[in-house]
Amino acid sequence: MGKGQLTRHAVLDQAARTASEVGLRGVTIGSLADLTHMSKSGLFAHFGSKESLQLATVRHARDQFVNLVIRPALAAPRGEPRVRALLENWLDWDTNVLPGGCLFVAAAVEFDDEPGAVREELVRNQVDLDETIARVFRGGISERHFRDDADPEQFAFQMHGILLAFHQHSRLLGDPLAAERARRALNALLDAARP
Amino acid sequence: MGKGQLTRHAVLDQAARTASEVGLRGVTIGSLADLTHMSKSGLFAHFGSKESLQLATVRHARDQFVNLVIRPALAAPRGEPRVRALLENWLDWDTNVLPGGCLFVAAAVEFDDEPGAVREELVRNQVDLDETIARVFRGGISERHFRDDADPEQFAFQMHGILLAFHQHSRLLGDPLAAERARRALNALLDAARP
Repeated sequence: MGKGQLTRHAVLDQAARTASEVGLRGVTIGSLADLTHMSKSGLFAHFGSKESLQLATVRHARDQFVNLVIRPALAAPRGEPRVRALLENWLDWDTNVLPGGCLFVAAAVEFDDEPGAVREELVRNQVDLDETIARVFRGGISERHFRDDADPEQFAFQMHGILLAFHQHSRLLGDPLAAERARRALNALLDAARP
Repeated sequence: MGKGQLTRHAVLDQAARTASEVGLRGVTIGSLADLTHMSKSGLFAHFGSKESLQLATVRHARDQFVNLVIRPALAAPRGEPRVRALLENWLDWDTNVLPGGCLFVAAAVEFDDEPGAVREELVRNQVDLDETIARVFRGGISERHFRDDADPEQFAFQMHGILLAFHQHSRLLGDPLAAERARRALNALLDAARP
């Protein structure tokens, strides 16, 4: 990476941390200038507008999510092991990567009533993620770990629900059993899907 | 209700609508004065501070939730019918009552990293709700609709996850199948719990 790219990367790392704690709306040229000790005019030259900055933050976090959650899961054997790897990486992502947990959980409720480019990007990410989960599950059907007539999209919906419940139980309630509950919930889903 | 109470009720109805769309942080003496055409000094006399106003909004929405979701569900026959009534009322609450859907979903991610009275109130509500779900489920164990060794707290965790996934699918993705997916997910949970 050149110096400009390194700077951009560091700024977006900070932006993702901020978004995870106070939401994407807290990611502005002004707030980032304070946090990164860069000039507002320098940041403006990099990102152009608040909306572009928020979009760049979402794309940066998406790259992190793909690198830390999706790609390593795809390295696990196809079928049930890959589904389990996906859950473990996702729990880790929501627990250890950003100070406020998964920023997409916060961004989804922040922007669901606000039309615009940021909302559209979040929708695309969400659809892609559900499709990825469904595809990983379909691999388990091919491997005969799961029944032929199991519904991959329904599985994606329910697995997503498990992660959202985990996020709320761990972050809002500080429930020490949250990860264990998420694993048990996935076990129940998998048991129901077996041939 | 006296006139003062009526006014307070109308202001808090508006505050709950605002919180569902832009979050509890958007509920301020100033924003409510604009929306209700009341004076800031009048609102200040009623509520005292932004935090008191946000707390009053959470309690008002909690009363609405109890009246529209919990109480009518408790009128259904104990066991499986009561669990199903709870889901239907909850889906209705998240779809039709407030313009931005369930405000607790948004408030949970807004305040999970922000210590204080509002967060504590949200935690209490969440714990109460999970306990209510678990109690309703336990009624189904007594009625022998569900197995003796089924875990009511685990059921509450998973049912909560279904609602969170429904919220995201319906509000962010505009998925027309969201309610159907939520019902199928509950059916799967209930099937797994049968003796």
